[in-house]
Amino acid sequence: MGFEFVLVKRDPHSRARAGVMHTPHGEVPTPVFAPVGTQATVKSLSPRELEELGAALLMANTYHLYLRPGADIVAKLGGLHRFMAWDGPIMTDSGGFQIFSLEALRRVNDEGVLFRSHLDGSEHLFTPEKAIEVQEKLGADLIMCLDECTPNPASYEYEREALERTHRWAERCRRAHTKEEQALFGIVQGGIFPDLRARSAEFLTSLDFPGYAIGGLSVGEPKAVTRQMVDLTVSLLPEDKPRHLMGVGSPEDLFDYVARGIDIFDCVLPTRLARNGAVLVRTGRLNLRNARFADDPAPIEEDCDCYACRHFSRAYLHHLIKAREILGLRLTTLHNLHFMLNLMRRIRQSILDGTFAAFKEDFLASYKAREDYRMQRHPHRAA
Amino acid sequence: MGFEFVLVKRDPHSRARAGVMHTPHGEVPTPVFAPVGTQATVKSLSPRELEELGAALLMANTYHLYLRPGADIVAKLGGLHRFMAWDGPIMTDSGGFQIFSLEALRRVNDEGVLFRSHLDGSEHLFTPEKAIEVQEKLGADLIMCLDECTPNPASYEYEREALERTHRWAERCRRAHTKEEQALFGIVQGGIFPDLRARSAEFLTSLDFPGYAIGGLSVGEPKAVTRQMVDLTVSLLPEDKPRHLMGVGSPEDLFDYVARGIDIFDCVLPTRLARNGAVLVRTGRLNLRNARFADDPAPIEEDCDCYACRHFSRAYLHHLIKAREILGLRLTTLHNLHFMLNLMRRIRQSILDGTFAAFKEDFLASYKAREDYRMQRHPHRAA
Repeated sequence: MGFEFVLVKRDPHSRARAGVMHTPHGEVPTPVFAPVGTQATVKSLSPRELEELGAALLMANTYHLYLRPGADIVAKLGGLHRFMAWDGPIMTDSGGFQIFSLEALRRVNDEGVLFRSHLDGSEHLFTPEKAIEVQEKLGADLIMCLDECTPNPASYEYEREALERTHRWAERCRRAHTKEEQALFGIVQGGIFPDLRARSAEFLTSLDFPGYAIGGLSVGEPKAVTRQMVDLTVSLLPEDKPRHLMGVGSPEDLFDYVARGIDIFDCVLPTRLARNGAVLVRTGRLNLRNARFADDPAPIEEDCDCYACRHFSRAYLHHLIKAREILGLRLTTLHNLHFMLNLMRRIRQSILDGTFAAFKEDFLASYKAREDYRMQRHPHRAA
Repeated sequence: MGFEFVLVKRDPHSRARAGVMHTPHGEVPTPVFAPVGTQATVKSLSPRELEELGAALLMANTYHLYLRPGADIVAKLGGLHRFMAWDGPIMTDSGGFQIFSLEALRRVNDEGVLFRSHLDGSEHLFTPEKAIEVQEKLGADLIMCLDECTPNPASYEYEREALERTHRWAERCRRAHTKEEQALFGIVQGGIFPDLRARSAEFLTSLDFPGYAIGGLSVGEPKAVTRQMVDLTVSLLPEDKPRHLMGVGSPEDLFDYVARGIDIFDCVLPTRLARNGAVLVRTGRLNLRNARFADDPAPIEEDCDCYACRHFSRAYLHHLIKAREILGLRLTTLHNLHFMLNLMRRIRQSILDGTFAAFKEDFLASYKAREDYRMQRHPHRAA
């Protein structure tokens, strides 16, 4: 009942591939988009709705759950699956990203990282061993090594030192990891420096993790650089292991990085947009706050079969959003996740059918990408 | 396809009765508890959830919908039922309660009431004719006459003048009312003065409305006075017409006023409590914010079969509430409405079975009532 990744089909014209991850809580067809449930809940949705949406994998945040409600409480309640009533596969990150981005950082050294809680200012020391202990208590199916996340931009020197520490931490995480049923992923870092990325991919591959995450990208660097780093990293990672591009992405990113060989995506974009009244449609984004929707009887998207589109007009959603009614952001969240999950299902099917390139071209011809969400600092992950 | 009220059974030991209201959008078994959907949504819930909860009647607010999104927009979108995707029966109040309690009141005279919008300060004149016009555009199954709501306490003189105006307005509402498929209810006022209540019940009965609401009670007066006013009013209203006690009530109120002959209740109490983390159980109320629930693996109530109780622990709900996650208040709302709707179904069944008195005694023996929600000004209706 451990973790296994099976490749099912490769696209002949790109690095895209379709596979299946077998986990103790069920199969995850890849490529997969994982909705983010930072605090053991995908904001505004119930597990039943996530199941109906066809979510195959959820991402939860170790940092947040460690601070509240605490890993011991989650363990006492039977682990994260039972706690949040989600029987499907879950992954947790190591907490590194949040510790290093919430400005709560106090001190990093080889032992670990000392930080202050954003909730009450209390001091906590996260070591690689602690990150594993907490994640073992939470009990997700996929867990992550503790990594040092560098600011962007960072100097080569800084990036190299951080990377070496991340590598030493990866070895300690591997040793500390005791629960075979949880698959521990290594995280490739190295910033925007090709030689560091290459070193990281090679070093972590030598530790033979069951899967690899790529961290520290899509944090403000130019998209061409992100692509270059992903291409380089993927080319050095083993073919038979799943690859997770952390904190990515938008609809256009799914196509871009699936084509570059990524299997797992997680991103707060669709849920965060939804809470701001923005919905994803085939032509791009609509903001339902806009007055032009006040009397629009059409659904968000005509042929969408999500609950929101089957029952409600843009006018009603506009009203709910203006009136700050919770149902408004529930319905936009539902729609946006449906959009992403459905898009990923169609991408996977197109790989299986050998029509990925055509589907990609077709989608991107009508979808007007917006890059504004990248302009914020670390906008794409739940910090 | 008009409105019809059929009495099915009378309790031999009280004024309690079971009946059915036939409306263009389906049958409403009475006595009935109507969840409040102030802004065309029962806060945090979807129509699908309300259907699954067995809600038979929803209450929406004319004042709020008139101001936002506006009755013309709702009409353009096909009316309130289609707008909010609720195919079942809906009632709207006249807007009087909100106009007279939101401190936005500018001037009342025989013509109508001039008030300021709480949203943008704009001035609006509501006349009886306007209240009917707006409610006809909204298209609810049960609608209400415009009434003047007096502050509590009010002098006899004030109350009498307001009542006389309410009566003149009732006549004008009746004349203005054109849509036969909407049942127009009269509203009995008169404050805490028995002779005014009696006059009001008699006058409105002479206008032969298809149903009667009792307004202006449970707004801070002693409970003994509320009961006295309800008893007096009910004794003077026709047996074959449904009676609605507006803005009531709590679980204990349902028993109390069903026994006094009330058929329809609406109250924000269960949904408002839920948003504050308080849940209704057979012994009274629990506040899930309390630290003692932080690691409590039990559901809100052991044998409750609502979605929240079937899947989640008090510990998880405590976590969601502390973390201000929307799912927390969704689940407490779901539970509290299930509690009220289920309680009302059991009350009705006990009337049919001839066991109402025993059921009432049994329930109240273990339920510890709390009256604190009455201490606020007009806490029980969506102002």
